Amino acid sequence: MPRIDAARLLSDLHQLRTIGAQGRGVVRPAFSAADMEARRWLKRRYEDAGLEATIDGVGNVLGRSRNSGKALLIGSHSDTQPTGGWLDGALGVIYALEVVRALAADSATRALPVDAVSFQDEESRFVGCLGSRSLTGALAPEIEEGAADSHGVTLADALREAGLANVPRLHLARERYAGFIEAHIEQGPHLEDAGLKIGVVTGIVGLRSIRFIFRGQQNHAGTTMMARRRDATTALYELAHRINVELPKVAAERSVWTMGRLRVEPNATSIVPGYAELDLQFRDQSEAPLDAFEAIVARLVSEINARGGVTIEAVPTRAPIAPTRMDAALQAHVETAAERHAPGKWQRMPSGAFHDAGIVSASIPSAMLFIPSLGGISHDFAEDSREEDIVLGCQVLADAAASILADGATGHPIDVDPLR
Amino acid sequence: MPRIDAARLLSDLHQLRTIGAQGRGVVRPAFSAADMEARRWLKRRYEDAGLEATIDGVGNVLGRSRNSGKALLIGSHSDTQPTGGWLDGALGVIYALEVVRALAADSATRALPVDAVSFQDEESRFVGCLGSRSLTGALAPEIEEGAADSHGVTLADALREAGLANVPRLHLARERYAGFIEAHIEQGPHLEDAGLKIGVVTGIVGLRSIRFIFRGQQNHAGTTMMARRRDATTALYELAHRINVELPKVAAERSVWTMGRLRVEPNATSIVPGYAELDLQFRDQSEAPLDAFEAIVARLVSEINARGGVTIEAVPTRAPIAPTRMDAALQAHVETAAERHAPGKWQRMPSGAFHDAGIVSASIPSAMLFIPSLGGISHDFAEDSREEDIVLGCQVLADAAASILADGATGHPIDVDPLR
Repeated sequence: MPRIDAARLLSDLHQLRTIGAQGRGVVRPAFSAADMEARRWLKRRYEDAGLEATIDGVGNVLGRSRNSGKALLIGSHSDTQPTGGWLDGALGVIYALEVVRALAADSATRALPVDAVSFQDEESRFVGCLGSRSLTGALAPEIEEGAADSHGVTLADALREAGLANVPRLHLARERYAGFIEAHIEQGPHLEDAGLKIGVVTGIVGLRSIRFIFRGQQNHAGTTMMARRRDATTALYELAHRINVELPKVAAERSVWTMGRLRVEPNATSIVPGYAELDLQFRDQSEAPLDAFEAIVARLVSEINARGGVTIEAVPTRAPIAPTRMDAALQAHVETAAERHAPGKWQRMPSGAFHDAGIVSASIPSAMLFIPSLGGISHDFAEDSREEDIVLGCQVLADAAASILADGATGHPIDVDPLR
Repeated sequence: MPRIDAARLLSDLHQLRTIGAQGRGVVRPAFSAADMEARRWLKRRYEDAGLEATIDGVGNVLGRSRNSGKALLIGSHSDTQPTGGWLDGALGVIYALEVVRALAADSATRALPVDAVSFQDEESRFVGCLGSRSLTGALAPEIEEGAADSHGVTLADALREAGLANVPRLHLARERYAGFIEAHIEQGPHLEDAGLKIGVVTGIVGLRSIRFIFRGQQNHAGTTMMARRRDATTALYELAHRINVELPKVAAERSVWTMGRLRVEPNATSIVPGYAELDLQFRDQSEAPLDAFEAIVARLVSEINARGGVTIEAVPTRAPIAPTRMDAALQAHVETAAERHAPGKWQRMPSGAFHDAGIVSASIPSAMLFIPSLGGISHDFAEDSREEDIVLGCQVLADAAASILADGATGHPIDVDPLR
């Protein structure tokens, strides 16, 4: 089995951290100067590791193995949130680099083909998972068209600015790959709370969201009697509380729902509000609870609407994300490797957050592994993990990669075509 | 009985309306250039009507009758909301002027002493009912100290700017007065809905308000399971909805409560919020329902707090306003006058909005009368009333004033002392 080089792994993680560093955090949003600098640095590292490296027309960095046979794709994303942590995405990207080097350093694994990737804009500056969508052919022109960040900068301008406007976009040839593995920090507290070291991801939860718009009648809070009020917030409080009472009755073990964003007009103590909005977002690893939630919500909305006071309109705020299953055979390899290096200290678990693997799994078999996040914190400068957990996770990934490829090597030639 | 001059009344109302006019509305907040211009105009009108007129050190305009005997004080306020209507306050101010003139024009009422007043800052630019508080000795130094408007302008600066810094403040001598009457637009829809012309106010509702502060734990909306969430909005929705369910059980006929202002942090669809605020304001014409509301709210808060997740802190957001009763004897005079001019077209009713009469009634017997507001609209450029209703209201007030003074004239000398 290959042995990773812990010092080299940590050194590269810290070197990547310096690009866009701000205090303990990293500011490296997609297509920023720091992001592009990181991608050029990564391309050189891929080349140093013997890969054939390319930055494609959306900024994906792909390092292709020169070995023959069904390849394993490993990676994540190197862009960050506007005020991001140093490990989100970066961990999985440097793991891939280190696995390539570790396998190349061992005569038993030297011939195994591993491709490394850093996807672009996983963090949704313009289009969430832009890079993995583009690479797998899941980036419809209408998604890209008109995409702009929160400051109004368009994706087209950002691509031009980054010098990518006329650079070809790569497309994965499915037949080249035995699969894809993405390693990531958990971004939640479960592993740490349970004293575990590795999470083997069973699937990525689906997500739907609805915006409720409440229309009533604005009025004076002293002179308008209760019976004639059409108070937008009264309906909002009722709907929200009843959702919180009803959903647990049909929820699965890990179903979650959140109503953390609302707006009230005019939002004044002495005025009966005539307008309000409330967002409901809900997630589960299978569609059934999500369907059940939607049915309950529709019933509650029509009950309140039937009274004829405030009217509630329910509109989806984004395209639903379907739950995705990770590949069982790949998971088994990750589990075996986890049990070898962290016996009894790993578990199967769904991912409550979305990842590039959720896109890639539609094209090729995919798996994910998690390492613990300190305090479950992510998307924050304070994001961190224990060094020993970082090292352990990479070793598990290297073992899993070697065993997947030892199983699946079938002698196909490299056939990723940049112009396809 | 005195006869008012409808044309003169309407002409003065429209002339006052031009000072600070904006479209159909009026922008004449306390101490603004328009407000001070209106007060100087009013002082001249008082003098033309034979009154001894003064603008005092907080901007009150007081016109004192030269007749002997217990006097009746009549008036309201001429300051407006930041974007106010043309009748709120102005109606009662011009009514007082017209009643003085109508009584003086009739040999039967010529000797009756009527003082006219326009109070300052009823609309709370700095201190709600500043003028009536000051005139009745209810303006504690600690209320005035540090008072500032929503733009940070201090009351002290506004007084200086208006040239009032060194002007003496008047204080009412209670023994001078038989009582105070304030006429006002209803600012609600009850009279119009019921096809009535005059509301005889029985009392001004009391008002209390509570701010609830919800403290939980901010978290990722995908990776934080429901069981371990401490979602500030979950507690907010529950408390607010249960308040709406429980309060009707103990509410009086005209109790009202409103939860129209809230704040959620960070107020994002994908984040479990860790902090929220909600304001509850409730009003009734007697203390008992207000006490019952407070008891219910305290029980609900402690029930939710006992669960140990989100903690709720309840803090009063302003000093409570106690319900005030209008004087029964004065009300009877207003009722008799209303029945004479609008037989069967008047009713007794509480005021859901606060008025200067709520302050003055603590010092001298007070009464109020309402005329209908079109569509119940006020504090808005669209605020309006029918001309015939405006004229009728003033005639009722003139009759009531004459009969009150015919009853109560006891020959006391004038004893308002500007330096007292």
